[in-house]
Amino acid sequence: MRAVDRAQLAMMLEVTAFPKPGNVDRCHDYETTTLEHFLASIILVRPAFEQAELGRMGIGRTILDAVRMTGSHKGGNTHFGAFILLVPLIAGNDIGGAVSCVKQTSVEDALDFYRAFGMTQVRVLESDDLDVNDPKSAEKLKSRNMTLFDVMAYSSGHDIVAREWVNGYSLTRMGADLLIDHGCGRQSIVRTFLDLLAYEPDTFIAKKHGQQVALQVMEKAAEVRDGSRDLASFDQDCIDHRINPGSMADIMIASIYVALGEGWQWDC
Amino acid sequence: MRAVDRAQLAMMLEVTAFPKPGNVDRCHDYETTTLEHFLASIILVRPAFEQAELGRMGIGRTILDAVRMTGSHKGGNTHFGAFILLVPLIAGNDIGGAVSCVKQTSVEDALDFYRAFGMTQVRVLESDDLDVNDPKSAEKLKSRNMTLFDVMAYSSGHDIVAREWVNGYSLTRMGADLLIDHGCGRQSIVRTFLDLLAYEPDTFIAKKHGQQVALQVMEKAAEVRDGSRDLASFDQDCIDHRINPGSMADIMIASIYVALGEGWQWDC
Repeated sequence: MRAVDRAQLAMMLEVTAFPKPGNVDRCHDYETTTLEHFLASIILVRPAFEQAELGRMGIGRTILDAVRMTGSHKGGNTHFGAFILLVPLIAGNDIGGAVSCVKQTSVEDALDFYRAFGMTQVRVLESDDLDVNDPKSAEKLKSRNMTLFDVMAYSSGHDIVAREWVNGYSLTRMGADLLIDHGCGRQSIVRTFLDLLAYEPDTFIAKKHGQQVALQVMEKAAEVRDGSRDLASFDQDCIDHRINPGSMADIMIASIYVALGEGWQWDC
Repeated sequence: MRAVDRAQLAMMLEVTAFPKPGNVDRCHDYETTTLEHFLASIILVRPAFEQAELGRMGIGRTILDAVRMTGSHKGGNTHFGAFILLVPLIAGNDIGGAVSCVKQTSVEDALDFYRAFGMTQVRVLESDDLDVNDPKSAEKLKSRNMTLFDVMAYSSGHDIVAREWVNGYSLTRMGADLLIDHGCGRQSIVRTFLDLLAYEPDTFIAKKHGQQVALQVMEKAAEVRDGSRDLASFDQDCIDHRINPGSMADIMIASIYVALGEGWQWDC
């Protein structure tokens, strides 16, 4: 299967899997972002993924193009973190190839990435020295000669998606292994997602609600997995408090992409 | 918006719309064909749609390629009728262009189409002189010099999808007008689908269950539309009796494609 198809299938399988605590899924929309917005992004991003597959453009520029292509609907940012993980995976085909791609990124990739970041409404830390909303950030990147890899390394302490670039996609690898262990079919996605949530705090939740809430979600996920908490009520609890594990969903997409490439069957 | 994107969005919006009496939708799978199978087909068909957009191959060959590309999953045929309608619409951009494309089809297109038909498990009439399961059909097509347009004309009496080729996509046109009348957003798709179901019998239902059942579904849809029958119970009734208005779903997809091209907004 072509890498572009695999990437789009991974995104589709992630968003339709149900129940997925707090996130948009087959049976749950957000107020302003619906399942259709996610699926529209999955369709509209195709040319950027083909660009990644052909290696025609830099990683940063391809992420920027992906954000542009999926910005035509009214659902806002749906997949920024997923693009950060998938573009190198498509360009390199697998984790080994992706790791080599991200190490070769340039300052120009970093500048394109910041342009992309500025188009989304992704939350940043207020204390951030390289805030994307600050026009001086571009100058700082250039003067410090920071590549996109360096930017990810800089963010890796407080962002599990950025950290994947630096540590060889280790959480993605773990998710792919879990998927394969859990066996074929969509219920394995739900089980793997719970495993990942229980493994460590989601940094998207931490940025939005604080580390304490992120840790509580992690504990509750572990309880669901161990049978001492009900999945449906955990889902509803997350929804009621607007807690959405967005970064772990991005990791989940990357894990499905990798597992599909290693023979995992979504379709039992 | 590019025709290929429009076609994929139309397919996505049709399958996720809910509730859709008897068909796979956001909240309902069939036993062996799920929402994910439909969405996988929508992703995997892309290169065939691009081929149609570029006008590189014949209409019949492009339908054959679409069936091949979407045949890799275990959900069986999901969109054969939709491909018959969409491939000329993409090649011609709009209804006017599609009408001109279908008139130019050849005997070779008809042969490719029969190859595609043979790969699906679409129901045919037992009395059919040009049965796709009969190897003699190809010889008959050649000896009678029948183009794909002629094949559709031959089938148009008992198949509303084939009839669209012959009557200038008139039901597709009606559906697009209804969508625009009903206004933006996904609920207009549900309303338009009910309008189409109430307008005339679905020939897919007629082939599977007989004309009487197809007429009953038409009457019940009219009752739902007029408020004297409940939509959820009509949906459940169709599901319980395995009645799925598959041909009208294909028309619905074509109508969404046309309406999107005329400025209809799925995203209010």
